[in-house]
Amino acid sequence: MAAEQFSAVEVIRTKRDGGELSNEMIDWTIDAYTRGVIAEEQMAALNMAIYFQGMHRAEISRWTNAMINTGERMDFSTLADPAGRGLATTDKHSTGGVGDKITLPLAPLVASFGVAVPQLSGRGLGHTGGTLDKLESIPGWRAELSNEELFAQLSTVGAVICAAGAGLAPADKKLYALRDVTGTVEAIPLIASSIMSKKIAEGTGTLVLDVKVGSGAFMKTESMARELAETMVNLGTDAGVNTVALLTNMDTPLGLTAGNAIEVQESVEVLAGGGPEDVIELTVALATEMLAGAGICDVDVRAALNDGRAMDKWRAMILAQGGDPDAKLPVARESHTVLAPAEGALLKLDAMDIGLAAWTLGAGRARKEDAVQAGAGVRLHVKPGALVRRGEPIATLLTDTPEKMERAIELVQRSILIGADSDRPDMRLILDRIAAK
Amino acid sequence: MAAEQFSAVEVIRTKRDGGELSNEMIDWTIDAYTRGVIAEEQMAALNMAIYFQGMHRAEISRWTNAMINTGERMDFSTLADPAGRGLATTDKHSTGGVGDKITLPLAPLVASFGVAVPQLSGRGLGHTGGTLDKLESIPGWRAELSNEELFAQLSTVGAVICAAGAGLAPADKKLYALRDVTGTVEAIPLIASSIMSKKIAEGTGTLVLDVKVGSGAFMKTESMARELAETMVNLGTDAGVNTVALLTNMDTPLGLTAGNAIEVQESVEVLAGGGPEDVIELTVALATEMLAGAGICDVDVRAALNDGRAMDKWRAMILAQGGDPDAKLPVARESHTVLAPAEGALLKLDAMDIGLAAWTLGAGRARKEDAVQAGAGVRLHVKPGALVRRGEPIATLLTDTPEKMERAIELVQRSILIGADSDRPDMRLILDRIAAK
Repeated sequence: MAAEQFSAVEVIRTKRDGGELSNEMIDWTIDAYTRGVIAEEQMAALNMAIYFQGMHRAEISRWTNAMINTGERMDFSTLADPAGRGLATTDKHSTGGVGDKITLPLAPLVASFGVAVPQLSGRGLGHTGGTLDKLESIPGWRAELSNEELFAQLSTVGAVICAAGAGLAPADKKLYALRDVTGTVEAIPLIASSIMSKKIAEGTGTLVLDVKVGSGAFMKTESMARELAETMVNLGTDAGVNTVALLTNMDTPLGLTAGNAIEVQESVEVLAGGGPEDVIELTVALATEMLAGAGICDVDVRAALNDGRAMDKWRAMILAQGGDPDAKLPVARESHTVLAPAEGALLKLDAMDIGLAAWTLGAGRARKEDAVQAGAGVRLHVKPGALVRRGEPIATLLTDTPEKMERAIELVQRSILIGADSDRPDMRLILDRIAAK
Repeated sequence: MAAEQFSAVEVIRTKRDGGELSNEMIDWTIDAYTRGVIAEEQMAALNMAIYFQGMHRAEISRWTNAMINTGERMDFSTLADPAGRGLATTDKHSTGGVGDKITLPLAPLVASFGVAVPQLSGRGLGHTGGTLDKLESIPGWRAELSNEELFAQLSTVGAVICAAGAGLAPADKKLYALRDVTGTVEAIPLIASSIMSKKIAEGTGTLVLDVKVGSGAFMKTESMARELAETMVNLGTDAGVNTVALLTNMDTPLGLTAGNAIEVQESVEVLAGGGPEDVIELTVALATEMLAGAGICDVDVRAALNDGRAMDKWRAMILAQGGDPDAKLPVARESHTVLAPAEGALLKLDAMDIGLAAWTLGAGRARKEDAVQAGAGVRLHVKPGALVRRGEPIATLLTDTPEKMERAIELVQRSILIGADSDRPDMRLILDRIAAK
């Protein structure tokens, strides 16, 4: 056995004592962890030291790069349409929120302008939903594509939403599972490198980040979200990816639905020129950023939602992956509507509580191996800022497992705050835009 | 399977975010770790969070108590001499240093005043020696005693130095092995609870702590050593043990020897009324504290070294454990003497370097399963503060494995600093006394 270049304890102590990890140390650490030379308990201690001591920009870049090097890199540089014209690629990543179905209308909308969108996505865990779980409520649709299928669909349709292969930054998968059980998920350098290692390995030309802030987000405060956004924009920039981030509010769910089939339905409404104003606003803002990154400016993005171009791309995208865009979506067997307990201004519909309610009703999973219910979730009748009368419907809860209804009702009731009209909260959706420095 | 009261992630996050762990959380944590419900990686993350966030006095007490509860507790309250008179018990613990043979003369010295000394000790690992390793250089002497043998010897002889049974605070053994590989050894609450869990479980009435500070000690600065001492004194006091600590210097080895047989030899010199002044000073100071804790004040401790009473106890103690106090001790086969490279005041003989040299020569072990050489070590000819001539002997290195000599010589040469007489360092041995508040 060859001698190791460093010892795990040496690396841990360096970071614990506030030092900077050298390039060689970082490369060795990720490689040795992948080989099992650094044990799980040692990586856990290092992660906690990183949580407290942080990492410099150069350390995070190197760490991210080392994770990328544990797997394959995709390359879209040769991508062309059927006529042989080269295609630019652009991608979006959201840090996760409640009712966040934006990828569904966004990918076909952007593709309708001739930019390819290889949207490699994941499944949901905990209170935030997963894009693939939502799309799987469409009969016949399949998430798993080979690399050849992905390239072919990008060339012909331009938009793909599919499962990220296990070959991208496999060290991240091992590391994330460890962070999940050791209370080190929240370390900003580790969040940033986890997200960006996969996005950079995907080889997209442009990346737009939707960094959520608020009760239903990972980052509860704007300063934390801003730090994460800046870290990720720096990482992308350092790796040659044209990266920008929007800070967006996640104190209340996006749109009027949190679930699977009901979110697909709402997305289709937006693609048909309707739907809730906040979903439209964020979809258009992110599409504008993605197109600008690909060099397309001064286009009327919203028009493509109203004139059917985005809808055409959606139908082609769903069909290409075996789905029937006209199929009736599954409907939950049981429903219960929660009513306003008082008259006044609806000051709050807490995103975390609504997310937990949807999860409890069966829209999400507690463990990776669990299945989700396509029809389960929460449908809102009003949004914060509205004036409500006592007894007016606030939210309808949907599930196939009525024994879960009681707990979900409690959560939805807890999410509601009704007060004086003068106390209406700041309702801005897009809080800031973070570009490379 | 019964539901668990807490989750590991909940406990880790509480400490990570600066919160106080409740009594119930602490009890559950130690118990669940012992049962394997909390995984090694989770405990590693918690230890690192404790390193950064610390623990309050009540938390450390509870943590220590929970570790004690994983094993047996000894009880000396019924201990009596052969005439049936009750015997008080007292114990000393050193945080570890180079040339620290104090337990050897101390236990018989204190016992010569009619107080029982159940000195449960360990073996050495790394650059600090182990009390049992030193005594095992005496032909025939055995470290392992049953509880019955321990009680009988305490009753008849009054002094016992033997191996601590595995039954005392077994959780500490598991936790220490984890801390050793995860860079979390240095967390003061964990050091304090590790030491005190075993000492409190031993059931001694009085405990005197020798907290070392300096290059050859665990604690490199006086403020760290003071914090550790105060934490341990509080822990002992809260557990009903009469506890006091001395802060003592460990920038240079104690006495003139660092090894095994050569330290026994030096201890016997002290018991015969001779030996190096620093060893006498510390032995007498610690004995005075131990006796005072047991209610014996106004006695001439030093006299018992000069008039043979302590030596009589030593001989009885060695004989009771199968050793021959008159046997010739093992001698190393090879020796090399390092000479002064210049004339001047000897400003430094670095304890860490000398300790590493003795360890390299075979006096210590790198892994638990290694054997030690009885004759190996370093014998000093002078101490810091002395004026030396160029070419004068500074230290003689002893080993049975001559291939290790070169590296050890380098270490001893590195340990030496000769300079101007006016730069002579503060040579105080006993820096402070920390009593319960």
